[in-house]
Amino acid sequence: MLPRVLLCGEIEYVQDEFKEMFHGIAEVIHLVSESRSHFLASFGPDGPYEGTVALYRRNTSSKLIGKFDAPLIHALADTSKVRWIAQNGSGYDEIDVQACKERGILVSNTPRANEDATATTTLYLMISCLRQFSMAERSLRSGTWKTPCNAAQTHDVTGRTLGIFGLGRIGLRFARLAHAFPMRIIYFSRRKAESVPDWCEYVSSVEELCKQADVLSLHVPLNQSTAGMIGEKEIRTLRRGSVLLNTSRGRIVDQEAMIRALEDDHLSSVGLDVYPDEPHVDPRLLTFPQCTLLPHIGGESAESWRTRELQALGNLKAFVLGGIGEDIVPELKTGIGNSTIL
Amino acid sequence: MLPRVLLCGEIEYVQDEFKEMFHGIAEVIHLVSESRSHFLASFGPDGPYEGTVALYRRNTSSKLIGKFDAPLIHALADTSKVRWIAQNGSGYDEIDVQACKERGILVSNTPRANEDATATTTLYLMISCLRQFSMAERSLRSGTWKTPCNAAQTHDVTGRTLGIFGLGRIGLRFARLAHAFPMRIIYFSRRKAESVPDWCEYVSSVEELCKQADVLSLHVPLNQSTAGMIGEKEIRTLRRGSVLLNTSRGRIVDQEAMIRALEDDHLSSVGLDVYPDEPHVDPRLLTFPQCTLLPHIGGESAESWRTRELQALGNLKAFVLGGIGEDIVPELKTGIGNSTIL
Repeated sequence: MLPRVLLCGEIEYVQDEFKEMFHGIAEVIHLVSESRSHFLASFGPDGPYEGTVALYRRNTSSKLIGKFDAPLIHALADTSKVRWIAQNGSGYDEIDVQACKERGILVSNTPRANEDATATTTLYLMISCLRQFSMAERSLRSGTWKTPCNAAQTHDVTGRTLGIFGLGRIGLRFARLAHAFPMRIIYFSRRKAESVPDWCEYVSSVEELCKQADVLSLHVPLNQSTAGMIGEKEIRTLRRGSVLLNTSRGRIVDQEAMIRALEDDHLSSVGLDVYPDEPHVDPRLLTFPQCTLLPHIGGESAESWRTRELQALGNLKAFVLGGIGEDIVPELKTGIGNSTIL
Repeated sequence: MLPRVLLCGEIEYVQDEFKEMFHGIAEVIHLVSESRSHFLASFGPDGPYEGTVALYRRNTSSKLIGKFDAPLIHALADTSKVRWIAQNGSGYDEIDVQACKERGILVSNTPRANEDATATTTLYLMISCLRQFSMAERSLRSGTWKTPCNAAQTHDVTGRTLGIFGLGRIGLRFARLAHAFPMRIIYFSRRKAESVPDWCEYVSSVEELCKQADVLSLHVPLNQSTAGMIGEKEIRTLRRGSVLLNTSRGRIVDQEAMIRALEDDHLSSVGLDVYPDEPHVDPRLLTFPQCTLLPHIGGESAESWRTRELQALGNLKAFVLGGIGEDIVPELKTGIGNSTIL
């Protein structure tokens, strides 16, 4: 009998391919639970999920069975043979990875799949903020043509200094797109990146980054050390008239400090795809017509979704075939080869 | 007595510099006419424009004295010593250059000044159309977060084929920005461009361009041979789901054919900065939520406006100093050295 893999969430873009991918390797079964208790009770003998060794997961499954918090992970470890969770998405903050570590369950994510889509979104927000295009389109659509747009308030991208906080994959990809204008590109990361182009200049602190940047763009993950990291001090260190872009996570910015800086024109504009309390958007943000506000779709495109599904399923397949997949999340990578994990 | 130059339109960005530019060279005077008849009657002896040899012109002056059509040009030639019109702007369709040619008046424009701003606008429209960001922002601002956005309908820029119609300065600048993703870049121009990068592939006809492009972008001037050039046949030659971008002039596209193609989803989206009858925008365009519509601000930024003013004033100054300036429009360039012109 083939091992089973359970899909906790939909396959939308590779429906034709995924059956072939697992043909002869594993039996792919679908989530039928509409509650957490049904889910956890279904891995035993004669249960619908009997024999399941790995899960494919999307955040959409939490509507039915809840987040993968510590109680769920512990119950899963107690009642099932599941040893791999292949998350579809780069974010895995809905999975308690510490509990997974304690119970020998590995978690993979899809870190590269939305790199291009997110960097492109950041480029769009930068152009829109500097040129005030969002306001311009609203004025056309409201019937006032280009009133109240004012060319004197708008700026070319070319020749400005872009400060990138976090030169990971998305930050570097965005840097390359921005370099085409060109812009001067400076960055700060926890450590100086290796093998980056010569035109990417490392600065030694967030403060230095803020001092020199015309546009500050955030590309760090949300964790305890980055939460609220761009606050009053950092925003006021930016020059008057600077632009702030955030396509990473809303809580990296102190939203109150950002709004104060928009109110007194210290920031000329902000371009946001993320907010501290999504899907809630602070209504004060809507009162600044020069800002561009997207509903957290930075990584979403047909191509990136397809890539995400293939990558998550590929990780799942590698685990079933060889006992180990790729893209293990950093918190669990350190334990690989360690008996507490594998 | 110094020759006089008359400003038909405002100087907004180089107010400090322009007086120095003409100090000791020409007397700079301002338009005081509020009608065409007053304007044309004011170049004679003791008139306010007596001794004027050249004009600086912006399209805003047509509100007071009308377009520079054939009757105006002929009257200007009859009653004044004006032999140079320095247009602030790359477009000069409000000046009858044939009449200028007949009467020995030369016209300069500012062809390079808004190249970067316009190419950047085209890049913005391309990203917005492929990713449906305009619709996404409207859904956030209307309080529905990302509903009704559908990732399956959106596409990455990377890897698509961009067809550029007209590889002049703006077209080539846009090509370089798009190449950063990269995209495949193909182009058609009246003649194959010289010294373009190897990755710019020339195709032999508009039809071939339309056959291969995922995104078609227009970068040709409006004249008798380009008006309506992108019509039913060309649009239907594009693949189903293609995107059309226009930052050149509205009348290059057959708007009715374009709207039909949006209605039956042959075009997935259009990104427009220009319209056939500005500032009027056909209300049917507003009914396609996936389109991005800007109010003809493609070339407008503080930097490009400043450059335009300096370039137009520089052309004016060169004429006053040496009898000939730069940036003479193509229709009049052929006659230089020919006695009918100079």
